[in-house]
Amino acid sequence: MEIAKPYLLFLGDVADQLAAKTALGIVDWRPEWCIGQHRLPGCKADCRIPDLTIAEAAAKGVKTMIVGVVNAGGVLPDHWVSAIVDALNAGMSVATGLHKRLGSIPAIAEAAAKNGGQLHDVRFSDMNFATGKGKKRAGLRLLTVGTDCSVGKKYTALAMEKGLREAGFNADFRATGQTGVFISGRGLAIDAVIADFIAGAAEWLTPENDPKHWDVVEGQGSLFHPSFAGVTLGLMHGAQPDAFIVCHEPTRTKMRGVEHALPTIGQVIDLTIANGKLTNPNIQCIGIAINTEHLDEAAAHAILTATATEYGLACVDPIRTGVKPLVAEIEKRFGR
Amino acid sequence: MEIAKPYLLFLGDVADQLAAKTALGIVDWRPEWCIGQHRLPGCKADCRIPDLTIAEAAAKGVKTMIVGVVNAGGVLPDHWVSAIVDALNAGMSVATGLHKRLGSIPAIAEAAAKNGGQLHDVRFSDMNFATGKGKKRAGLRLLTVGTDCSVGKKYTALAMEKGLREAGFNADFRATGQTGVFISGRGLAIDAVIADFIAGAAEWLTPENDPKHWDVVEGQGSLFHPSFAGVTLGLMHGAQPDAFIVCHEPTRTKMRGVEHALPTIGQVIDLTIANGKLTNPNIQCIGIAINTEHLDEAAAHAILTATATEYGLACVDPIRTGVKPLVAEIEKRFGR
Repeated sequence: MEIAKPYLLFLGDVADQLAAKTALGIVDWRPEWCIGQHRLPGCKADCRIPDLTIAEAAAKGVKTMIVGVVNAGGVLPDHWVSAIVDALNAGMSVATGLHKRLGSIPAIAEAAAKNGGQLHDVRFSDMNFATGKGKKRAGLRLLTVGTDCSVGKKYTALAMEKGLREAGFNADFRATGQTGVFISGRGLAIDAVIADFIAGAAEWLTPENDPKHWDVVEGQGSLFHPSFAGVTLGLMHGAQPDAFIVCHEPTRTKMRGVEHALPTIGQVIDLTIANGKLTNPNIQCIGIAINTEHLDEAAAHAILTATATEYGLACVDPIRTGVKPLVAEIEKRFGR
Repeated sequence: MEIAKPYLLFLGDVADQLAAKTALGIVDWRPEWCIGQHRLPGCKADCRIPDLTIAEAAAKGVKTMIVGVVNAGGVLPDHWVSAIVDALNAGMSVATGLHKRLGSIPAIAEAAAKNGGQLHDVRFSDMNFATGKGKKRAGLRLLTVGTDCSVGKKYTALAMEKGLREAGFNADFRATGQTGVFISGRGLAIDAVIADFIAGAAEWLTPENDPKHWDVVEGQGSLFHPSFAGVTLGLMHGAQPDAFIVCHEPTRTKMRGVEHALPTIGQVIDLTIANGKLTNPNIQCIGIAINTEHLDEAAAHAILTATATEYGLACVDPIRTGVKPLVAEIEKRFGR
């Protein structure tokens, strides 16, 4: 899948910043591709890039409007449809990560056909995958896992790709969710694959490679999330990680979207190894990434230090402190 | 989904009995619905029911031809298409568990439209599920889990439904695979659901019920199968079982379809509890079901006795020895 750049980010009229995490992620990691945002009245999200009308965006050379927001259930509200039709009429392509195909909405299908715009439904995979084989492949793989959903697994993986490359490693981010696909321009939304093929799709995503090459795989969900643990497990079995990083958000009081308590980092390490050794007997935790965005500087450093001591592992906030200690850990344990 | 009875079982020209396990399962559990089988030259499978031509089957009142075989990848070979068209032209409906929709083949779609026959693609779910919530529901649930695929999880669940009912319990088999759906006339193929919704689909399948009612849920795959463990886990989290039975085939030398060694029954018990307690903290193993069909009587009883002693659990072959000890265990631990 090739998505034409640059982008206009459509935010609709969502109720908070978290609903726009796709758009925010694209701006954070690929600001040079993001010409502006398009918001509807009442929108509570803001990417802090110029607000543009569809016509202004088209005049500035935008090639694709990204629907960079998710609402409950991944549905496309009726009142967003006319903005999408306008973008197509202005000559853009449109990409979404919603659960409904853009082309299933007659007005959108018609506008795309009339104007020749592409419709990218990132959450749908039209590929036929094989079932997973579980066979060891050459190359090294790093997976980010989480105590919950939305705790920084994608950010950590992107930061590790950057950090490993800066340190001279050969490393590639492997996107498994819609935002990651928009950021890297490739990959697949693993949770949109038919259940039988989760592990097989993860094997396709992280193919055999040079023995010293690192795939940095974006994790999904959590083994402790009752909605999505099946996806988490299938992805891990297919990715057969040599190393994993546990990602955690310390101010979360319960698992996102459900009533369950959060597991401890230690529980995540233990259950990840217990399950992950099936396809990689040498799987090991190389460190911890804590998202401290809701803490002040002192509290952030206190929790990083305390957690590092508690588990005897490198512990960073990829955004606040960077990932150098995790990259050093990779070098120490696996060499160059 | 309602599938009209009685059935004609189409076996194609598959290479062995295992490829016809869907058809064989239907004959074992619902012989009264199976009027005959239809085989192509070279077929090595046999359900030991009358061989009928399409015309003979139609004359005997068959309502639905079940494509009761699976080949690698779930593909429908071209040379099976004409038999399906013939069945439709003879006034039957057709049901399959293949990965390809019957209606995607023009000759089949055309014949169905012309004759008014239904096309049932059991492996496709056109339902929209919610994501799993992980919330405790009233009612009791029993799940069959396995050391591998194809070790007797469905048979054990069906035998437990029968055994529990005979003992006066209120119990319902919950089908999660194509054969189970053909046998029970309802349920869904859980491995055909979009990965994000595995647990949600399992919650839909095993809804809130009377506190003393047992759902007997057909397990899928194995937590130790590198191709399918994600499905196994999502199904377990959604089904939130109070009790589980480990199913095992003792002559298997490696996991089906891959090169992995089989886990021990003890490993399956431990990993099932480690993962399953997320949605049911009281999950417990109530016994073991061993498929001894490839052993003689003496060897079968020896392994059942040895395994019962090793784990301190009731151990049966549901076909050879029946499930009474497992039903007794349910009564002892959970009452009536």
